[in-house]
Amino acid sequence: MPTDPYNPEFFRRAGHQIVDDLANYLESALAGALPVISLAAPSELAREYQDPIPLDAAPDAGAEVSRCLGQILRESIHLHHPGYVGHQVPPPLPLAALGDLISSLLNNSAAVFEMGPAGTAIERQVIRWLCAAVGWDSASDGVLTAGGSLGNLTALLAARNHATQGSAWLEGLHAGPPLVLLVSDQAHYSLARAAAILGLGQDSVITIPTDSRFRTDLTALPDLYRRSVEEGKQVMAVVGTAGTTATGSYDPLREIGEFCGEKGIWFHVDGAHGASALFSEKYRSLADGIELASSVVWDMHKMLFAPSLATAVLFRRREDNYGAFSQEANYLFARRPEEADFDLALRTVECTKRTSGIMLWLALRVHGVQAIGEMLTRTFDLARAFANLVKMQPDFELATEPQSNILCFRHLPPSLNDPAQLDAHQRQVRRKVVAGGRYFLVQTVLRGKVYLRTTLMNPRTTIGDLEGLLAAIRTAASSLPAGP
Amino acid sequence: MPTDPYNPEFFRRAGHQIVDDLANYLESALAGALPVISLAAPSELAREYQDPIPLDAAPDAGAEVSRCLGQILRESIHLHHPGYVGHQVPPPLPLAALGDLISSLLNNSAAVFEMGPAGTAIERQVIRWLCAAVGWDSASDGVLTAGGSLGNLTALLAARNHATQGSAWLEGLHAGPPLVLLVSDQAHYSLARAAAILGLGQDSVITIPTDSRFRTDLTALPDLYRRSVEEGKQVMAVVGTAGTTATGSYDPLREIGEFCGEKGIWFHVDGAHGASALFSEKYRSLADGIELASSVVWDMHKMLFAPSLATAVLFRRREDNYGAFSQEANYLFARRPEEADFDLALRTVECTKRTSGIMLWLALRVHGVQAIGEMLTRTFDLARAFANLVKMQPDFELATEPQSNILCFRHLPPSLNDPAQLDAHQRQVRRKVVAGGRYFLVQTVLRGKVYLRTTLMNPRTTIGDLEGLLAAIRTAASSLPAGP
Repeated sequence: MPTDPYNPEFFRRAGHQIVDDLANYLESALAGALPVISLAAPSELAREYQDPIPLDAAPDAGAEVSRCLGQILRESIHLHHPGYVGHQVPPPLPLAALGDLISSLLNNSAAVFEMGPAGTAIERQVIRWLCAAVGWDSASDGVLTAGGSLGNLTALLAARNHATQGSAWLEGLHAGPPLVLLVSDQAHYSLARAAAILGLGQDSVITIPTDSRFRTDLTALPDLYRRSVEEGKQVMAVVGTAGTTATGSYDPLREIGEFCGEKGIWFHVDGAHGASALFSEKYRSLADGIELASSVVWDMHKMLFAPSLATAVLFRRREDNYGAFSQEANYLFARRPEEADFDLALRTVECTKRTSGIMLWLALRVHGVQAIGEMLTRTFDLARAFANLVKMQPDFELATEPQSNILCFRHLPPSLNDPAQLDAHQRQVRRKVVAGGRYFLVQTVLRGKVYLRTTLMNPRTTIGDLEGLLAAIRTAASSLPAGP
Repeated sequence: MPTDPYNPEFFRRAGHQIVDDLANYLESALAGALPVISLAAPSELAREYQDPIPLDAAPDAGAEVSRCLGQILRESIHLHHPGYVGHQVPPPLPLAALGDLISSLLNNSAAVFEMGPAGTAIERQVIRWLCAAVGWDSASDGVLTAGGSLGNLTALLAARNHATQGSAWLEGLHAGPPLVLLVSDQAHYSLARAAAILGLGQDSVITIPTDSRFRTDLTALPDLYRRSVEEGKQVMAVVGTAGTTATGSYDPLREIGEFCGEKGIWFHVDGAHGASALFSEKYRSLADGIELASSVVWDMHKMLFAPSLATAVLFRRREDNYGAFSQEANYLFARRPEEADFDLALRTVECTKRTSGIMLWLALRVHGVQAIGEMLTRTFDLARAFANLVKMQPDFELATEPQSNILCFRHLPPSLNDPAQLDAHQRQVRRKVVAGGRYFLVQTVLRGKVYLRTTLMNPRTTIGDLEGLLAAIRTAASSLPAGP
């Protein structure tokens, strides 16, 4: 007899079972008692997932739920593991994950007020908290959207419509001067992608060089701007990054903002990773000048430790948010005028829109912002301690001093001198270390050289873990055919 | 003593508590034992959510979790309530919501294989299931993305790049002939928005009229196409809709597809709402011809009863999916070539990408696709029964016979004849009925006239509930100042 899918008692039983299994899992992952990542090759794993769609209900629903969950847990990466120092995805706050369950079961939509009264009100409260942290008053506003890439696209869409006074929205980009975008060579790839999606073309992105700490070179900016204007181009926006992807560097936001202010150009800050420093007393000055931005992108699912995806796109002037999308849909927005501010779909790509404010709101209500700010502080502190550790090793080289919680370095065995061999060495070592199951780190290319890259996303990671990482790298290196 | 946010026992306790509260809630909602929607006005509700960000941890975490959940439940719309017949958002399968909890806690990302091995493999399996249902072979492929609007944008981006052979991506839209898009007057607003976002301009959208059942008028299509070509424009795509928003109508996909095939034009099918009929033996012929599409958008979070957001964007030819985004990012994609198919970020807007395949995959593994197809069948059947009921009433008028599970109609009290008064009457009646707390329906404008609109998203809604709705409408009408 198949289970009625809506049976509340089935939900209760399956829910308790899943919560217990996940609690046990969390305990193991936090303790590092399992390999940090499943090591099955993609094609190998694909074979496990090749059955056709199941037609009938499983004979024993509870057993099938267990089997599915076990399979997922076995073949996932474990972000709560202290050896996880990979990409910029955090071990989410368990309570935030539970808040997300509330969103999933209620399935309210924070797009049209009626379809999610609490979800909408909560999103607006979270947005006000973030705007206040940026240093903005009640003229500012924003929305949550599905990820930093979509957030950057939304902000640049507003900039495009602002620069063309709406003509690009209605008539397209066939007329008018070519629009260009000034971004540093360390900006996230989603910015060039956004330029391409928006019809400017990837070639419209003018790259600003960066200094030795991978921050926008202020001496280059005015020249690049002048040249664009002389060539008959219209500078649509300058982008500053608060926490670059590769090295976690903070651009000099105040100086860029002042330059944009003088010239009357849109200043967008991609703070996906680093805007959260605003919640750390110790590190908030890194984002100094962010309040000069026209728009800010800020991921809740990075250094605020929320599950993916919840990105805030914030605007200093509320009307710029509305300016991104100027359109109506009868069946959605036939509402009283004073309610327009509550119909968030007027201001996002999403039409049905997850109530993604709930997860962070719940975590903040219960844990408070100081605790979350301290978690960030711990990871930034740890990067500095790790940098000092690396600098003391004769066979390691730092790419640059860390500004946030990202540290790039290379292993330099005495036996290797050739640049190509050194690059290959980092890649081989990395693969070997990851295969050991104790650490997950990644790699990146900086100024043409391959570096090992660690992002200290987990506040539970200790300097002892990172000493272990260096040892693991040396062990891996010595086991390589060309090893020292 | 504040709770350690990562404490597994805290997660376990809070998890059991939330599951129990949600199970009790689900039971009440399914029984219709609470008002279908909270009736607080937006500004009233906003006052409850105006405190500044909480600095410190709540003194009693468990009590605070209860308070927060209680507040959300009180002030939400209840999609599992049998009187919910509003927008196209379903009462999600409870097990799918629990699957989503697994995604939230693990926080794996289905963007780069290593960051979500199981999540990626599961997404690929779900995509294959959906492609097979469309009738496509192994040359097809696709991805999940955050919502139908983003899905339509992704598909049209691929169409734009295909039409311009990549030049729009690199050089922008300044050169080349103007691109236009042919869509019916019943297409979703996200298509015109996508044209505006992509730099074509909203004016590039050429509207195809619809017939009496709100389906694309095939006699108009060739003329509109010819005229565009004569005016020197390039037709980038024709869009067909499988389940229009206002009336749930299915365009004649086979005929549009054959026309596009002859002319060599991209054929996009927006099947956000209605592609799920492919899983219903009784109704799958409504989507006949969908296999002729170049791209299909299909929302899991509509008639497959998954929580928001999970939209499949499917491509008949895998390479068209890659063609949407042609860019690289060193730190993400420095991988072995045979793994490229597993790095889904190469093919979506998202960079960090929720493992949103898990929720539907779990529900299908446990309940089977026949049960889910039958849930859809039940709602489509119910719309037909409801239409017959409405037609028997002298004081109600149907907009058109239902094709899926959406029914639009008007109340025509004998005392009212003036068109403007009749429009106002529908609005007033709707507001009054919703305020009664037993039903949530919406309204729409069709051919300039206001209609009441019901979407039968809930398989638990019965014809008895809908008889009650007609009675509630009459009661509301008779209580109005201008009432009969």
